[in-house]
Amino acid sequence: MPASYAYLGPEGTFTEIALRTLPEAATRELIPYVSVQSALDAVRAGEAEAAFVPIENSVEGGITTTLDELVAGTPLMIYREVLLSITFALLVRPGTKLSDIKTVSAHPAAQSQVRNWLRTHLPDADWESAASNADAARLVQEGRYDAAFAGEFAAARYGLEALETGIHDFPETAQTRFVLVGRPARPAAPTGADKTSVVLWQRDDHPGGLRDLLGEFATRGINLMLLQSRPTGAGIGNYCFCIDAEGHISDRRVAEALMGLKRICLEVRFLGSYPRADVRPGEAEPPRPGTSDAEFVAAADWVARCQDGRF
Amino acid sequence: MPASYAYLGPEGTFTEIALRTLPEAATRELIPYVSVQSALDAVRAGEAEAAFVPIENSVEGGITTTLDELVAGTPLMIYREVLLSITFALLVRPGTKLSDIKTVSAHPAAQSQVRNWLRTHLPDADWESAASNADAARLVQEGRYDAAFAGEFAAARYGLEALETGIHDFPETAQTRFVLVGRPARPAAPTGADKTSVVLWQRDDHPGGLRDLLGEFATRGINLMLLQSRPTGAGIGNYCFCIDAEGHISDRRVAEALMGLKRICLEVRFLGSYPRADVRPGEAEPPRPGTSDAEFVAAADWVARCQDGRF
Amino acid sequence: MPASYAYLGPEGTFTEIALRTLPEAATRELIPYVSVQSALDAVRAGEAEAAFVPIENSVEGGITTTLDELVAGTPLMIYREVLLSITFALLVRPGTKLSDIKTVSAHPAAQSQVRNWLRTHLPDADWESAASNADAARLVQEGRYDAAFAGEFAAARYGLEALETGIHDFPETAQTRFVLVGRPARPAAPTGADKTSVVLWQRDDHPGGLRDLLGEFATRGINLMLLQSRPTGAGIGNYCFCIDAEGHISDRRVAEALMGLKRICLEVRFLGSYPRADVRPGEAEPPRPGTSDAEFVAAADWVARCQDGRF
Amino acid sequence: MPASYAYLGPEGTFTEIALRTLPEAATRELIPYVSVQSALDAVRAGEAEAAFVPIENSVEGGITTTLDELVAGTPLMIYREVLLSITFALLVRPGTKLSDIKTVSAHPAAQSQVRNWLRTHLPDADWESAASNADAARLVQEGRYDAAFAGEFAAARYGLEALETGIHDFPETAQTRFVLVGRPARPAAPTGADKTSVVLWQRDDHPGGLRDLLGEFATRGINLMLLQSRPTGAGIGNYCFCIDAEGHISDRRVAEALMGLKRICLEVRFLGSYPRADVRPGEAEPPRPGTSDAEFVAAADWVARCQDGRF
Repeated sequence: MPASYAYLGPEGTFTEIALRTLPEAATRELIPYVSVQSALDAVRAGEAEAAFVPIENSVEGGITTTLDELVAGTPLMIYREVLLSITFALLVRPGTKLSDIKTVSAHPAAQSQVRNWLRTHLPDADWESAASNADAARLVQEGRYDAAFAGEFAAARYGLEALETGIHDFPETAQTRFVLVGRPARPAAPTGADKTSVVLWQRDDHPGGLRDLLGEFATRGINLMLLQSRPTGAGIGNYCFCIDAEGHISDRRVAEALMGLKRICLEVRFLGSYPRADVRPGEAEPPRPGTSDAEFVAAADWVARCQDGRF
Repeated sequence: MPASYAYLGPEGTFTEIALRTLPEAATRELIPYVSVQSALDAVRAGEAEAAFVPIENSVEGGITTTLDELVAGTPLMIYREVLLSITFALLVRPGTKLSDIKTVSAHPAAQSQVRNWLRTHLPDADWESAASNADAARLVQEGRYDAAFAGEFAAARYGLEALETGIHDFPETAQTRFVLVGRPARPAAPTGADKTSVVLWQRDDHPGGLRDLLGEFATRGINLMLLQSRPTGAGIGNYCFCIDAEGHISDRRVAEALMGLKRICLEVRFLGSYPRADVRPGEAEPPRPGTSDAEFVAAADWVARCQDGRF
Repeated sequence: MPASYAYLGPEGTFTEIALRTLPEAATRELIPYVSVQSALDAVRAGEAEAAFVPIENSVEGGITTTLDELVAGTPLMIYREVLLSITFALLVRPGTKLSDIKTVSAHPAAQSQVRNWLRTHLPDADWESAASNADAARLVQEGRYDAAFAGEFAAARYGLEALETGIHDFPETAQTRFVLVGRPARPAAPTGADKTSVVLWQRDDHPGGLRDLLGEFATRGINLMLLQSRPTGAGIGNYCFCIDAEGHISDRRVAEALMGLKRICLEVRFLGSYPRADVRPGEAEPPRPGTSDAEFVAAADWVARCQDGRF
Repeated sequence: MPASYAYLGPEGTFTEIALRTLPEAATRELIPYVSVQSALDAVRAGEAEAAFVPIENSVEGGITTTLDELVAGTPLMIYREVLLSITFALLVRPGTKLSDIKTVSAHPAAQSQVRNWLRTHLPDADWESAASNADAARLVQEGRYDAAFAGEFAAARYGLEALETGIHDFPETAQTRFVLVGRPARPAAPTGADKTSVVLWQRDDHPGGLRDLLGEFATRGINLMLLQSRPTGAGIGNYCFCIDAEGHISDRRVAEALMGLKRICLEVRFLGSYPRADVRPGEAEPPRPGTSDAEFVAAADWVARCQDGRF
């Protein structure tokens, strides 16, 4: 297996920064790809061991290109997640002053996070979209634009300096969630603070259908972190559901919930069980009374004894 | 183990008739007991192999003395059920005419089923309660009363004749359900048309508590045949629930429902899985889509493959 | 309207004691009847303003004769409930010593509550059933039996004395709940701690049917105090459900729950809304967030504004 | 009120075609805007009577820019929806042959729908993204590219001809759903086949929270057509839910469901009730038994009679 990770490039974006927070990234070759699709295709083709791509952010929600790639095609599996707080720096060529800036550039997704800052500090600057924030920085380096919104870390790479850092419009810092995706294999062992991702297709569409699917989680006290509908391709109004649920497929309550879904859904795609990035083991809320592994084991033992007439 | 069955006596009642419909009764000594409690105590004490007692009828509902005995004390288990249609004959000494009858007797429970008939045909007769219908017949034989309501089969035993048969007030024939109760052992194999009986005690009392218990059956497509609340002894308003559900504890959907109940209830008492008397194997409604044993097996296999990374 | 209350006699039983705890009883003539049915028929026939009968006790559960009378026939309504703690006195003719007692008598229902006491203190005494505890006391007065279990208050009426008082086998004192039943009229105003009684008949029998009925209460945060199944008369396994729920039909959450039941049930019979005897106004648990009257009113106002385009 | 409709421009796109299918569009001035946001702002500012924008398509799902605009800011309301089947024509300057084509252009969203066609028929052509399909056609007209994918209707406007029509990769024709959005006012009367749109914010996040919200629809037999989660801005994992449900806010079952949601949600935003574009009145599935307006009225009447003691 090639010791390389594909990631959504170019170099110098938030994705690369997030990837480098993973200890295992230090021992792999990290290869930028031009799109989520091409990075994941590299994994499917065996050219890369895994791919690192954004899947959700606090401003845009689920990232549909990534979800759609995971929903369809050859099955892949999520092994890790990383949360990264996104704040922007305003990068300029050394010596540029705020009053010199006539044009600013960044990826369009940045716009929603710096709009108010721009209105206040650079109301007359023209916005020019770039293919990525890193690309905007490069274009500033080349003199095409005056300033770029990008991660502060990009300054060094492009010989720029940060006129301002920590720019973000929302009261909460924006966060992006990235996942490390590989070919299916045995999930890592549960840590006590895990997340399980699945895609569900309903068997038929009737009042209460989705409520009943969610009931498989709810009756076992399993909280949901993400519910994102995606078109099935069978026409408008036909959706499947990408769901992130707390717990690990090795947890009995999660395993039984997945069994229930498998029985009542048209199809279920398992996307992996992996450690949560938002809480550490020991910090996760314990299972609701009646849903711990110990209680599942005790209940199964009791039923076995009843089946045997020993009680 | 003694080759005897205890039953609620005396001889010559509907209980004995029902018991004799069981093939295995032909090879046992059948011993009448004066009460449900004493018959079940004989089983608990090892004096009888099993006890045959009424548990439900279409006029009175669940028979609380039987249910309370099964709910409390040393655990017992139900192995068989028998349904018997109850219609009464009016038994008299040979030669008695309808116009001769001044007093009629029967067990008080018979009264609700012959009241209208009496009002029409013997409006002036006095009612005298007896300890059992068989006892009433005996008292007619002895000349104490003029007529008894009892099963037609009792006529021969007491040298009486039936002036009228098939007496029942309700449009539907009344039915009584009897059960054969023994000490816990491995239940008989599933027949495809089985019933499972349990007693449930709620962990705490809150809005939706009972709804959630019933949900363990409902989400697995399991129909209920009986839900009878019984006091727990912890004061007024504190109830446990005697439940008859379709299916056998060896059916996976039933086993998983019982596991769920075991986890969320304060206590569950298993009262047995046994063939249904109301439908024959092959006539029972098949499990709802998604709840057959084959689907449970397939879903468990799928989860196991996911846990292993092979899918 | 006749200023009289019918009650389940004879005089001197716990029923009369319970009835006399109602202030309004002081201004009515109190007339004993030989059965629950005859007392309720007196109300239906207009011979009595109301009838006072037991409906539930902590040992026997729902009292089926009373429930069956309320379930069927001309509709009646519950206006009040009374809770009475039941402990027995051992009544004897003056001068009788414990060692003199060879026979004891009481209503059969008392047996379950004095059995252990008898076993310990009078293991050799013979039990003789009486039609009521008051009747047992009368028979002791007449010299037929040596002792009667009855309410201590019965001693004076029958010229007996209490050898022992406060007899009750269960750790909790047994309680009986009585109701005052009249012809339908506007229920008393809500007190803040009320109870609503209904009878529900399912439209059809399917997995989840009863769960869905209970869901009408559960989703509105309404706790249940009693769920008692009673046969419908349509054959074994066919039940309706007598339910006591917290709250008053004037409470919006209760009214909406009843509307929901009315829509999905084959039939609903309203049995009344009346003050709870177990808690006083101010002590009842407040409605769960989202189900108070104020929240119902606010939500209805909001929908009305939306229907109007003003929001 | 200005007699003009804003729409997502430029002229000559599918949006304009869809808008012109509305009879009322014939009597309004139709003004293209550069973005969904600017079109909706024109309505909010009173510059336009309504705005016509895409909200969902069968390939991309919910269109998040439109949903986010409706979720936040000054409330708006949906009055109409239009469904348009999207198939592409390959537009070229007159005389161009397939073998002449070296470059093709279209809006990036078109790519997912013509990818396979391109691979088969023009495997060597270079793809150049344009700001809109209409813009791509203009650039072909100006000679910058050789061919554009656009609606067939755009050929005439730009002096081009269609080398091929009806291009769509998916077996089902892609469809886009557009809505006409205005300031809040009384919704149009129900037609018998209507849709209601709302946004829900959960009061708190707990296992079963979303299931309970959906239960307000499910228990009243209301089917859902869209469930799209959108970030609330309170950080990753915090979502509100855009829901399209069948029925009209004047339908009692819908009104009661909305009341229920209003009570248990942190916030509910009503986005309008309007005629469905996918089925005509008379074709919509009738309400499930127990949820028709007539049954709601009957149930409310019954509760009122019970409250009054007349039943």
